[in-house]
Amino acid sequence: MDPSPTIAEIASFAGKEITLKGWLYQKTDKGKLQFLLLRDGTGIMQCVVLENEVPASVYAAARKVTPESSLILRGTVRPDKRAPGGYELAVHGLEVVHLAQEYPIAPKEHGIDFLLDHRHLWIRTPRQMAILRVRAEVIRAAREWLDNNGFVLVDTPILTPAAVEGTTTLFEVKYFEDIAYLTQSGQLYNEADIMAFGKVYCFGPTFRAERSKTRRHLLEFWMVEPEMAFVELEEMMGIEEEFVTHIVRQVLARRGGDLETIGRDPRKLQKIGPHFPRVHYDEAVEMVRKKGEEMAWGDDFGAPQETILSQGFDQPFFVHHYPEKCKAFYMEPDPQRPELSLSADLLAPEGYGEIIGGGQRISDLKILEKRIAEQNLPRQAFEWYLDLRRYGSVPHSGFGLGIERTVAWICGLKHIREAIPFPRTLYRLYP
Amino acid sequence: MDPSPTIAEIASFAGKEITLKGWLYQKTDKGKLQFLLLRDGTGIMQCVVLENEVPASVYAAARKVTPESSLILRGTVRPDKRAPGGYELAVHGLEVVHLAQEYPIAPKEHGIDFLLDHRHLWIRTPRQMAILRVRAEVIRAAREWLDNNGFVLVDTPILTPAAVEGTTTLFEVKYFEDIAYLTQSGQLYNEADIMAFGKVYCFGPTFRAERSKTRRHLLEFWMVEPEMAFVELEEMMGIEEEFVTHIVRQVLARRGGDLETIGRDPRKLQKIGPHFPRVHYDEAVEMVRKKGEEMAWGDDFGAPQETILSQGFDQPFFVHHYPEKCKAFYMEPDPQRPELSLSADLLAPEGYGEIIGGGQRISDLKILEKRIAEQNLPRQAFEWYLDLRRYGSVPHSGFGLGIERTVAWICGLKHIREAIPFPRTLYRLYP
Repeated sequence: MDPSPTIAEIASFAGKEITLKGWLYQKTDKGKLQFLLLRDGTGIMQCVVLENEVPASVYAAARKVTPESSLILRGTVRPDKRAPGGYELAVHGLEVVHLAQEYPIAPKEHGIDFLLDHRHLWIRTPRQMAILRVRAEVIRAAREWLDNNGFVLVDTPILTPAAVEGTTTLFEVKYFEDIAYLTQSGQLYNEADIMAFGKVYCFGPTFRAERSKTRRHLLEFWMVEPEMAFVELEEMMGIEEEFVTHIVRQVLARRGGDLETIGRDPRKLQKIGPHFPRVHYDEAVEMVRKKGEEMAWGDDFGAPQETILSQGFDQPFFVHHYPEKCKAFYMEPDPQRPELSLSADLLAPEGYGEIIGGGQRISDLKILEKRIAEQNLPRQAFEWYLDLRRYGSVPHSGFGLGIERTVAWICGLKHIREAIPFPRTLYRLYP
Repeated sequence: MDPSPTIAEIASFAGKEITLKGWLYQKTDKGKLQFLLLRDGTGIMQCVVLENEVPASVYAAARKVTPESSLILRGTVRPDKRAPGGYELAVHGLEVVHLAQEYPIAPKEHGIDFLLDHRHLWIRTPRQMAILRVRAEVIRAAREWLDNNGFVLVDTPILTPAAVEGTTTLFEVKYFEDIAYLTQSGQLYNEADIMAFGKVYCFGPTFRAERSKTRRHLLEFWMVEPEMAFVELEEMMGIEEEFVTHIVRQVLARRGGDLETIGRDPRKLQKIGPHFPRVHYDEAVEMVRKKGEEMAWGDDFGAPQETILSQGFDQPFFVHHYPEKCKAFYMEPDPQRPELSLSADLLAPEGYGEIIGGGQRISDLKILEKRIAEQNLPRQAFEWYLDLRRYGSVPHSGFGLGIERTVAWICGLKHIREAIPFPRTLYRLYP
């Protein structure tokens, strides 16, 4: 039997007889010769069928084959400078595994609703494949960095009894005779886990039932959340720099071709590296105002303010020391100015905005109890979380990096919905 | 400032002054000397405080410190053959970060309900930490093998409109004015993704709302699901062998100390390797009957039958060609005996039973349409899935490996609930 390499491996098979399995991406009919562009998931290869070199039945099949049909080709690999990848296949044999019906996605422009309705087919197009490969690399690189830097993966639950950040944006699940909620963050559990392991991370889907339709929001998105015992705000920011830089550099090193397919200028990513600028909240408010946008001190940045801020940088940058009332109940107050919190978000440049939210958590039992009471949170549900301040509490910090926002920034996407295989939005649950 | 290594790194600091941060695991009071066993998540270290070598205040603090208190110790690392790890810390300075209240988990035996109610603290005990470290390694190794073997990670959605395997065991989610269900498997989406990428995997939480209380079931569990275009049943089984063997060998190579803590005999794992025995369903039924257990041909194996079968092997083994009616609607029928399906489950030895379910999927549009009609599935919801058979259908196969079952087998656990950080069972949603 002939070897059956993937297109990515083809260079090692120059001059050899091989079998190639894949789908017809495009075809050019030149009368006595058919150019078949075959894709197999690892690349695209030009395959040439000459009428006077193959049996009549093979040539007839090559002529008849429709876009997206699945094929098994036999032939010889030969160098060809004009071919994508530098090699082409001189075809001897062709088996049509399945002759595709007329394919609904044409090279012409389609509306976004049509494309999202056909997301199961849309993902076959080179741009979407490239984005999803970058996504896979972002995830691989993130895990690699954490695994190699002493963080233990501890998966936190998806079905939870309590809300981290209020109940209005929670998805409710019927849990037999009880009610559960889909997680919005694994952080509270991470805080239990660091008391065992020192440094941990969770990595999974998270959910926000928000009735918003911005280009930055999904109802279901993936988040990686590292958490560290004995680490304070300043040290945490340094760790984030290393982490984000590693991700960007791995994408550049391993998915350069995909960035090219997407049309992303790699120079914008090549300059990313420590140290990222650090902007105090007070200063950030001033920056927004100077650009002519209204903003009251004490408010959180909305999408327009975030975009304005973020357009002023070509590196990711921290905004730190947000007012306590902008942030969740568990944020450690600044001992110097208790109206501020020891928090830091990381914003991507070029207008992309927040990709990481994080900060130092309250370590003192009394302060945490007070916060839970002030915010009318159900104390009973937080008893286990309070336990963490009863038995060996430590200063600790953590952050959550949103995968789709990071992919959207790295790929230079206008809308986050292309950064996830099957987006879930306000009116979209299909396919 | 002194360096602040982790306990795992301590050997490189012999003779040096260091700072050590962690929690008091145990203490022995010898009158003029305190032995503190400090744990920091990477190991446990013996730290010695001598009354006549430290200031009176330091000695008093060492004497007073309670189990699970968080501490910062300063001292000199010195070799000591009697100490766990071969080094001890001669303490000069001690800071009590937080003096723990009386710790509820004592070295004595506790009931399982008490331990599960205190899971956020229970995970600090060496055995639970060791199990969760093995879990992290199972996941890392699984991803590593797939990433290095041409599989692209494509995350499939958690919120889905349709059910893969019937609606009775689905968790229902209020999705604004609509209803969504929590995924039971990413497989159907994987099948769309292979038509783009050739080989893919998804890896995430999956959910089954089963009212069962066996030692093998969780309502929320993690599953890795590889799927491959142009791969048929036989080839798939070979791939599973390589995959499972890699995971076991990585755990042996990297988490040997944890297996020892758990009390798992590594020799049972050292023998795991290709090829795994392959048992036809017909033959498996005979094996069960020979051991004196009743079983009708055509039935699926229940827990008792699975345990009996699995006790007869010391390697994982395949049971293949299950009757079509035992399996889901998408299973490819055996062309020779259409009452059978091209399916194969992988069962772990020593009575553990199924860790993988898998098989070849129907590639023909007409056969799939017929199955959907026969099983009264909502055709409309499957239109996108049928599309995959309209546009370049190919023979394809895939499987799903349950993480908790695999961890339970590798660690030799009696109950699956210890194989996940925060188990979700019929009556347990807290903490």
